[in-house]
Amino acid sequence: MAAAEQGVDAARKEKEEEEEQVVNPWEVSAGKGGIDYDKLVDQFGCQRIDDALIDRIARLTGRPPHCFLRRGLFFAHRDLNELLDLYEKGEKFYLYTGRGPSSEALHLGHLIPFMFTKYLQEAFKVPLVIQLTDDEKFLWKNLTIQESKRLARENAKDIIACGFDIERTFIFSDFSFVGGAFYENMMQVARCVTMNKAIGIFGFNLEDHIGKVSFPPVQAVPSFPSSFPHLFAGKDQLRCLIPCAIDQDPYFRMTRDVAPRIGYQKPSLIESRFFPALQGENTKMSASDANSAIYVTDSAKEIKTKVNKYAFSGGQDSIELHRKLGANLDVDVPIKYLNFFLEDDDDLAHIKKEYKEGRMLTGEVKQRLMAVLSEIVARHQRARAQVTEEMVDAFMAVRPLPNMFG
Amino acid sequence: MAAAEQGVDAARKEKEEEEEQVVNPWEVSAGKGGIDYDKLVDQFGCQRIDDALIDRIARLTGRPPHCFLRRGLFFAHRDLNELLDLYEKGEKFYLYTGRGPSSEALHLGHLIPFMFTKYLQEAFKVPLVIQLTDDEKFLWKNLTIQESKRLARENAKDIIACGFDIERTFIFSDFSFVGGAFYENMMQVARCVTMNKAIGIFGFNLEDHIGKVSFPPVQAVPSFPSSFPHLFAGKDQLRCLIPCAIDQDPYFRMTRDVAPRIGYQKPSLIESRFFPALQGENTKMSASDANSAIYVTDSAKEIKTKVNKYAFSGGQDSIELHRKLGANLDVDVPIKYLNFFLEDDDDLAHIKKEYKEGRMLTGEVKQRLMAVLSEIVARHQRARAQVTEEMVDAFMAVRPLPNMFG
Repeated sequence: MAAAEQGVDAARKEKEEEEEQVVNPWEVSAGKGGIDYDKLVDQFGCQRIDDALIDRIARLTGRPPHCFLRRGLFFAHRDLNELLDLYEKGEKFYLYTGRGPSSEALHLGHLIPFMFTKYLQEAFKVPLVIQLTDDEKFLWKNLTIQESKRLARENAKDIIACGFDIERTFIFSDFSFVGGAFYENMMQVARCVTMNKAIGIFGFNLEDHIGKVSFPPVQAVPSFPSSFPHLFAGKDQLRCLIPCAIDQDPYFRMTRDVAPRIGYQKPSLIESRFFPALQGENTKMSASDANSAIYVTDSAKEIKTKVNKYAFSGGQDSIELHRKLGANLDVDVPIKYLNFFLEDDDDLAHIKKEYKEGRMLTGEVKQRLMAVLSEIVARHQRARAQVTEEMVDAFMAVRPLPNMFG
Repeated sequence: MAAAEQGVDAARKEKEEEEEQVVNPWEVSAGKGGIDYDKLVDQFGCQRIDDALIDRIARLTGRPPHCFLRRGLFFAHRDLNELLDLYEKGEKFYLYTGRGPSSEALHLGHLIPFMFTKYLQEAFKVPLVIQLTDDEKFLWKNLTIQESKRLARENAKDIIACGFDIERTFIFSDFSFVGGAFYENMMQVARCVTMNKAIGIFGFNLEDHIGKVSFPPVQAVPSFPSSFPHLFAGKDQLRCLIPCAIDQDPYFRMTRDVAPRIGYQKPSLIESRFFPALQGENTKMSASDANSAIYVTDSAKEIKTKVNKYAFSGGQDSIELHRKLGANLDVDVPIKYLNFFLEDDDDLAHIKKEYKEGRMLTGEVKQRLMAVLSEIVARHQRARAQVTEEMVDAFMAVRPLPNMFG
């Protein structure tokens, strides 16, 4: 997985003057007016998630759909209905997600796929594999192998802090786990993808190093259960569902193209939008700009300052004008963030209405956001502090999971 | 290692009408008049082995140089003098060779690097790693992974039958061994080689699959001792000497280019010519043409038939003419084969003289060759029959070799 799971570390080049948007695992750059997700869905060839599908998930899991789903953060999919058809008939599947460990400090956007995956794991009662692509980060960033491996382990702690069930979860880093059946599947995939095809899908050029063009099979093969003989021996046709941000779609387009040619099932996908920078949808969310995002290591005071100072407001320039015209919710970052993190639907609807109609001011909305974010971050920090080296070892141990479907 | 260790399985295209010779790990095609080795040495930038170097090896090892060395079969090198300088000062090295297991039936040409490596191992008292590139053969040939792995194991038996010292020898197949420190080194190499560079060195094109452009680091990294932590932990600067056929030079040109950039020593090389087909230097030696080579599974009767029927003769068309003009040794295959396999220098010199001056007939030379080859093949068959599955497991076990320099 690239750093761009939530589009944050991606080199989202500031070329808003250009119309052309670029979305691939290493670059997310919006055209004028932010990412055009409709265009992206059509271009990639995935499907939109509609209300019927959300209702179906609620019915099948016997619990309300996660707010990331009902508020449209996870908005697109591939073959999710087919997966649910099989699930309804009693066929199991497993979840696969991951992270490219390029930095120590995760921000809230990085947690989104893990928070959502945790919900899916609990709702469907299925096993989960989490890939830490330390090899990818070594190949793309100016890191040593040792540093990439260290970051993978540190990131594993944040992932574990999200509350995954150790009875159903296997976390692995590529530098530790590539080999054996996993490597065999990598070679099977590699034999099916021409250099021209890889260049077309990922936008490589011939001055890129061969590590880049070698990497896509590494991210492809966790989609195949036979890559994990300690978990899925004899279950080669087990289905896989991948929750990820939509910038990862190219990997899995490639994977789905190859799968039937090597006798495997295509993985299904459930794909999210990108988490916006504090400065708004069109600006670059950069790991090197601490003020562009809320980090899981931020203090309540830092959160307060960042939200007050940097969160782009859709409110009017003066109180008088705001009372009269109300806020523009389409560009307002505090509202976007509340949309992700304020779980109470009625509360959210109320805030949006009051703010839009000018009765609530930006300062008041920001107050609410600070409270919500501080609570989430504090909760994560408490959970993170409980994660020991032994727990990391336990989650990363290559071991069977006898009760993974229990 | 490609099938072309001795140029035999290589697609040596029969385009003798073209002047251009092509030599890379997957294709050896001679120009008019056979491979021009002088041109190859200049083109590749390696050095010729001269008498002084052969004398030096004899002096340092305290034994006569192997006939493959004194008869010019191993004829070129890279940094062998530097390696010997260090050896003379008491610094050790290790040997690395390999084979691409594309067929079950090995012929004599396949054994050449192993026979020579065995001599080097005994003469210098150094450890040896032998790579079986079952992944490469899967990527290049129409084989399943299972079949590639099976061939690797069968080939390991023939290699073991050459008489390697289990106290100093580690045999591994890529499908079994890639991972951990080995994979880390693969990624280090991959990051240093652009696609353009790989295309330049190996002649790939953009319709080739990405497995091909991913493979060169796999063959590169056995050159680095840190790829074998169970053998060379803490000896990251240990020197490596690679005996191979000259068609493998591209891999190690790449490896030597990368080595200093990632903090490793460049491997030294000692390189052989190709073993000719029975039909002569210009024809294709093909695994699919059983009559082009002597196989280690051939019976004495098959050897007799092949030598009599197919070994290209430099003798004259009639006995009268032969007595008058003598044989042309430059094109005579029986003489070339005796040059490789008849160990007695005086005996060989005598045969060459008598044959060249017309006193010995082709039939008589072929009789001598049959006897020599039958003896070598019978000896190999006896040794091969002694190799058990347990011995294969023992040679391929990932284990320390505590007496490897003893």
